[in-house]
Amino acid sequence: MLAASELGHTLTQKRYDAALPKLRARLLQAHFALRSQKFPVIVIVSGADGAGKGDLVHRLNEWLDPRGVATHAFWEASDEERERPFYWRFWRALPGRGRIGILFGSWYTEPIIRRVLGKSKGRQFDGALDRIVAFEKMLAADGALIVKLWLHLSKAAQKKRLKKLEKEGRIAPDDWKHYKLYNRFTKISDRALRHTHTDAAPWHVIEATDRRYRELAVGKILLTELTRRLEQAAAKHANKTTLPLLTPTSPARKKTSSLLGHVDLTQSLTDAEYAKALETQQTKLSKLAWAAHTKQRSMVLVFEGWDAAGKGSAIRRVTQAMDPRLYRVVGIAAPTDEERAQHYLWRFWRHLPRAGFTTIFDRSWYGRVLVERVEGFAPAADWGRAYDEINDFEAQMAGHGIIVNKFWVHISPQEQLKRFQERQRVDYKQYKITDEDWRNREKWPSYAVAVDDMVTRTSTEFAPWTLVAGNDKKFARVQILKTLVHRLEAEL
Amino acid sequence: MLAASELGHTLTQKRYDAALPKLRARLLQAHFALRSQKFPVIVIVSGADGAGKGDLVHRLNEWLDPRGVATHAFWEASDEERERPFYWRFWRALPGRGRIGILFGSWYTEPIIRRVLGKSKGRQFDGALDRIVAFEKMLAADGALIVKLWLHLSKAAQKKRLKKLEKEGRIAPDDWKHYKLYNRFTKISDRALRHTHTDAAPWHVIEATDRRYRELAVGKILLTELTRRLEQAAAKHANKTTLPLLTPTSPARKKTSSLLGHVDLTQSLTDAEYAKALETQQTKLSKLAWAAHTKQRSMVLVFEGWDAAGKGSAIRRVTQAMDPRLYRVVGIAAPTDEERAQHYLWRFWRHLPRAGFTTIFDRSWYGRVLVERVEGFAPAADWGRAYDEINDFEAQMAGHGIIVNKFWVHISPQEQLKRFQERQRVDYKQYKITDEDWRNREKWPSYAVAVDDMVTRTSTEFAPWTLVAGNDKKFARVQILKTLVHRLEAEL
Repeated sequence: MLAASELGHTLTQKRYDAALPKLRARLLQAHFALRSQKFPVIVIVSGADGAGKGDLVHRLNEWLDPRGVATHAFWEASDEERERPFYWRFWRALPGRGRIGILFGSWYTEPIIRRVLGKSKGRQFDGALDRIVAFEKMLAADGALIVKLWLHLSKAAQKKRLKKLEKEGRIAPDDWKHYKLYNRFTKISDRALRHTHTDAAPWHVIEATDRRYRELAVGKILLTELTRRLEQAAAKHANKTTLPLLTPTSPARKKTSSLLGHVDLTQSLTDAEYAKALETQQTKLSKLAWAAHTKQRSMVLVFEGWDAAGKGSAIRRVTQAMDPRLYRVVGIAAPTDEERAQHYLWRFWRHLPRAGFTTIFDRSWYGRVLVERVEGFAPAADWGRAYDEINDFEAQMAGHGIIVNKFWVHISPQEQLKRFQERQRVDYKQYKITDEDWRNREKWPSYAVAVDDMVTRTSTEFAPWTLVAGNDKKFARVQILKTLVHRLEAEL
Repeated sequence: MLAASELGHTLTQKRYDAALPKLRARLLQAHFALRSQKFPVIVIVSGADGAGKGDLVHRLNEWLDPRGVATHAFWEASDEERERPFYWRFWRALPGRGRIGILFGSWYTEPIIRRVLGKSKGRQFDGALDRIVAFEKMLAADGALIVKLWLHLSKAAQKKRLKKLEKEGRIAPDDWKHYKLYNRFTKISDRALRHTHTDAAPWHVIEATDRRYRELAVGKILLTELTRRLEQAAAKHANKTTLPLLTPTSPARKKTSSLLGHVDLTQSLTDAEYAKALETQQTKLSKLAWAAHTKQRSMVLVFEGWDAAGKGSAIRRVTQAMDPRLYRVVGIAAPTDEERAQHYLWRFWRHLPRAGFTTIFDRSWYGRVLVERVEGFAPAADWGRAYDEINDFEAQMAGHGIIVNKFWVHISPQEQLKRFQERQRVDYKQYKITDEDWRNREKWPSYAVAVDDMVTRTSTEFAPWTLVAGNDKKFARVQILKTLVHRLEAEL
């Protein structure tokens, strides 16, 4: 892919000057149109050292409306970044809808450099490339336009360029070191480009020897891609059709075949059993939480369940056993506008814990395949795709050493009714019951199908679901504590 | 202040149980009312080791609506935190309007611990306390309710409590070490409390020996404070009066007495002078920027100026000289809702650079004393107070070693008119000119007074303003570059 671009392209100053004003005007026009179309644009600037990536970033900033563009350079990772899965720092930097993010360095940099320096094996490299493909596919499916630019230099051109940079004092510390690895770097980059050249996010290789040629070429590519995507977006608005369901919703499914139907809701504990078990398990969890902290292991706990199933009080029995410095509870309600401007997983990525800490999600990313599915907030294509996206998200946490546990607190419809009625009676519990709760209750059968699909499709070895028997609150709390204790004992 | 609280308060289970339901119901009610009143509530939980701070945090979380409350425990600072001014991590954690933030550990912890361990001098300690007073005053003036709780234990009670915690495996690593310093800790804490016991943010000292007593006492304090503040807020809404101007706006001020009037706008450069000076200064800046990075020194640059004064193009001449990995340009437009929910300085704190990096603000916190003042978006009391708040903000940056430079790019009204007209003519410049620009232009005299006040009141040795002669763009760009080069040469 790379060698094919070595065609000796150049452009005279005269032709450059002649073409530029029109290109700039049209680019700006497209950038303004983007504001109302509301999709994010991710421009990845990568390529050989000395190929003018920095200059290109300057130029793009000059051409675009500075208020709608932000550049992120990925360099040394901070400890806050290193202590979280690799992609955390990229999620942090993703542009919101209607904005352009120029990424100088990206998710490609580290896999390629590690492979070039022999710090990773071919198999690991391929794995990293697979993850990239999945990541970009996910962003594209959410509407992002991804423009991947690779500035290529022949070996001779790179040498010449580095010498010039050195003279100007603009050379970066590792540039000459990398130059010695030119052949290897080119071969491995070529492999990366082929592997990740997808419909969702194709590569554009630009011969970078001549400044004027490469800048104008990039400007044209960006303009073409932006324009095409804007037209698509406009067409989509005009002709909104319902997408076919990816997962058949079948309310006729027999109750006995469902996972929830197998939860034995008659299980219960006496007060004495509860008091004893609670103390035992909380004492164990308390010590294990400190041990996890000492070993720099993190936990992510997800609590989902029927309204009034007792998620909140179960969470409190967990947190009571943990030093408040070690955990954070994140309640998921309506997203803020900064969150709405991003992929739906963004708001969860931002809360991932540092090494040795725990984040407890009271409701979570599973809203995508529960409420958003059942209420029709997300089209079927979106929530249908979400299972894979979620599994990949959790695989990244687990791969980083985060201990992931997910609880569905289950109760019977009869038990829920009883609790709703009690909430309306007791003064300080009234805030917990709203009209929405009653409305949700009517959709029980649809939710039951969605829960079943969710558990079936996202219960993995590294991020298991636990179905909690919640009709007896005492039993449920102890079941959750025991599950956590077992998991931590196994992991630590 | 502390010893006076040792009165042997206890509460029987019976009286606790009798009082609790009503307290909880009223607390929740107040918490719900907060949603519509929209002020932030900051609850600081501090006090002796083993006084039950952790338990209290649990209890508060149990009593309040979990969706409207977040707990932040301040423990080890991350490198991202250490590389920024001390208060950065607290700004990160401040609750938005309508929300309650429980801070477990706070801006008090480090100054007190450092003083107790003899790592800071009395003078430094007093300085830290002064800064706390200013910080809390600022938040309170912005509407925040600050509830500061100090859980006090007598020496005997602390010993007893630590032994119990030890038995339960719940003791923190440094607890016994701190116990040996009980007398010193108490004396120094007492000093801190007296120094920072202000109208804006008074302390509440609670005898913490008895769990039931301390929890109920805290619940009552929080309820009282919340209720009072809610009533004040409601009254304020009902009876909105214009506050007196803190700074007299006198458009009659003579032009000759103004700072802007002294800027020699006839200064200019020929093309040849410009080309030479630009190259010389950019080369210097390029090297200095790398030197600053190597020495882990950060820069914050502020660009303000008249519409069409050439801020954007001046910024580009600065960034062209810097490796794009070393800087970020933050354009300030309308705040997001996460930003609107916070003190106006919050959105700038979040962009402060890490050690060795530069943030360039294209417009800045000075909007408070420019557009917000002139357009009447902020009441006079708010923008009048802002000068001190801004000076303190910049002093914190400078105190942390950040190199702060502020530029006002000045042009004459005639020059502005010329440029507006040109912008309307040239295709790709049209986006730069809006009706708002023309409206702002009509308010030139009011802005001139505001700029003059701003420069007079916020030009400090550690964060100087440079008035840039902008009628000749070439001269302006070189002036800015030279100023930066001189400053960096002096600092590095």
